[in-house]
Amino acid sequence: MSWLLTAADLPDLARGATLLGTGGGGDPYIGTMLVEGVLGDRAITVLDPDELPDDLFVIPTAQMGAPTVMIEKIPAGTEPTLSLRILEEHLGRTADATMPIECGGINSMIPLVVAAETGLPVVDADGMGRAFPELSMETFAVYGVHGSPLALAGERGERVIIDTGDDDRQMEWLARAVTIRLGGVGHIAEYAMTGADVRRTAVPRTLSMALALGRAIRIAREENRPPFAAIADTLSRTLYPHLRELCVGKVIDVERRTTEGFAKGRAVIAPLEGEDVFEIAFQNENLVARRNGAVVAIVPDLICVVDHETAEPITTEGLRYGQRVRVLGISTPEMMRTPAALAAFGPGAFGLDEPFAPVEGEGGSEPPAAVPRA
Amino acid sequence: MSWLLTAADLPDLARGATLLGTGGGGDPYIGTMLVEGVLGDRAITVLDPDELPDDLFVIPTAQMGAPTVMIEKIPAGTEPTLSLRILEEHLGRTADATMPIECGGINSMIPLVVAAETGLPVVDADGMGRAFPELSMETFAVYGVHGSPLALAGERGERVIIDTGDDDRQMEWLARAVTIRLGGVGHIAEYAMTGADVRRTAVPRTLSMALALGRAIRIAREENRPPFAAIADTLSRTLYPHLRELCVGKVIDVERRTTEGFAKGRAVIAPLEGEDVFEIAFQNENLVARRNGAVVAIVPDLICVVDHETAEPITTEGLRYGQRVRVLGISTPEMMRTPAALAAFGPGAFGLDEPFAPVEGEGGSEPPAAVPRA
Repeated sequence: MSWLLTAADLPDLARGATLLGTGGGGDPYIGTMLVEGVLGDRAITVLDPDELPDDLFVIPTAQMGAPTVMIEKIPAGTEPTLSLRILEEHLGRTADATMPIECGGINSMIPLVVAAETGLPVVDADGMGRAFPELSMETFAVYGVHGSPLALAGERGERVIIDTGDDDRQMEWLARAVTIRLGGVGHIAEYAMTGADVRRTAVPRTLSMALALGRAIRIAREENRPPFAAIADTLSRTLYPHLRELCVGKVIDVERRTTEGFAKGRAVIAPLEGEDVFEIAFQNENLVARRNGAVVAIVPDLICVVDHETAEPITTEGLRYGQRVRVLGISTPEMMRTPAALAAFGPGAFGLDEPFAPVEGEGGSEPPAAVPRA
Repeated sequence: MSWLLTAADLPDLARGATLLGTGGGGDPYIGTMLVEGVLGDRAITVLDPDELPDDLFVIPTAQMGAPTVMIEKIPAGTEPTLSLRILEEHLGRTADATMPIECGGINSMIPLVVAAETGLPVVDADGMGRAFPELSMETFAVYGVHGSPLALAGERGERVIIDTGDDDRQMEWLARAVTIRLGGVGHIAEYAMTGADVRRTAVPRTLSMALALGRAIRIAREENRPPFAAIADTLSRTLYPHLRELCVGKVIDVERRTTEGFAKGRAVIAPLEGEDVFEIAFQNENLVARRNGAVVAIVPDLICVVDHETAEPITTEGLRYGQRVRVLGISTPEMMRTPAALAAFGPGAFGLDEPFAPVEGEGGSEPPAAVPRA
């Protein structure tokens, strides 16, 4: 069923989107301000993917760049819609709706900016089911919808169109180069598709899931309940049913550099109990968590660092020495764990040697994990 | 008057274009092979700029990249015309003719490849009056025709369109990034304009000048005459009337690196007579020649290194220790020496501190220089 999203929903959505950003995806709080500035007291129509007409024409919109730059380079506000318009002009066809390409971080918000500006509805689905650092890491592509042509808008009105046919990695490679030369951030429209394509290739209802997660955390806090059970409960009714607490501890080291348009690095967390070494490696997003060198969670499963008490999500650029954190592992939907999906955004796609192993353990058949200490 | 160019003209054209490349512009001999492969025994119509209909629609075509890469990465042959087609589709208008954007090096040849493939005529003019390393260094832009939208084709069929409005330096900046990621070479169509625009903004008859120079050198050799007087005589009937011999000597040092998509470096030449130090700095093309630190020729005037006897032009990537060379300075047309032109491609545009000084000396009123020792 389609539903209406208003400015009052944005803080919850931002919190949930930050969690699903798994450390990356850019800062959705900046996105919140952008949406609020355009939306006012109106509402955005959010379309359920199951109800889309087959021939609905959807143009997803997003921001591209390193989150470390995004927080210093706030969009003027016109670029997101400009990217949609560039692609519409190029294709000679106007969009009936927009959609996120990722459901974590600022890219949950950018399509809402476009929707608020244009009056278009937003589809409640995305192509990453979380945040990933590269444009080719899309379930859209895995299941046959390719990103080209991609339209890219710069803050000084630059217009770029990139068409690499069905080679989405080459699209990413070229678009990244342009984004770097635009100062580290560009706004893009890509993966244009029909309603039927959305149902076949997108991860469904991730916008409403982000909103539900953010809301559950807030309400638990308001009612002085630990938020972790609320998170587990919310996830249990989604395609992401398994939550596992991977570590509770203190951040004791963070290495981070912005290189080739990405924020790359690692964080070391000293568990509160014992002498184990817990480490997370990231490229914009958290990629792998290891305890004493052994993998405990790995892409595409979600590795989320949150405040140890409030469950406030902490992005890779927000990691600081001394923070008390809880690291959560969350299972991704089965459509993100197929061999084709893992080839696109599994461990090997990030240069990791370890194979994918479900965060919930072998077989994936255990019930949703309770969070014992929360 | 329009004229016909056949495959028999290509070796002379290549020789002249290499001279006008002032060390850069890519290897026109590779271009010759490309043209021959497509042209066969047909002819290309070359249009005189003074006779173009005002509303003739001209799309210039070129190759973009570092010459050090170009000689290792020969185009498949389809990219030059693909770039034209991409721009035609984007603009919704078909070209009536193509034209070089520079008259030196391989970019004298690329429009001929397009002409041979498409049957379009080529306009006898260009926008650099020589070769320059950047797409924004165009008399077109100086006199009001901007490069955007630019279409860029890659060897795997990649299609890119870049539109930066009237900011040609930003266009260069973004297109260079894409070219680097395409492996160092891209094929472009840009600076679309009318026949009236050509007359107002292009350096006229540089294709026929390159052909005349190459032919004069060949005939002088065939008749066992020194070629330098033939070069001077040919230039005296063009917009480039002043030729000065800057140095005769031996190459004793070459520094060259391919960086940020350009071939940058310097060559040191020991004059045959005396203890002077003669040095040329280049960025794809030769930028400045100094004798004992004092400028003797500087962009946009032409600095051409040729074999000391045969006058065969030597490109910056062809410079070798021990070569006996003659360095020629050639005056550029007045339209390339205005304050606006010097702002676009004068010494300051290359980070050189010295002001422009005409190679023929102050006033520029001396008669065409004889070449005393040739």
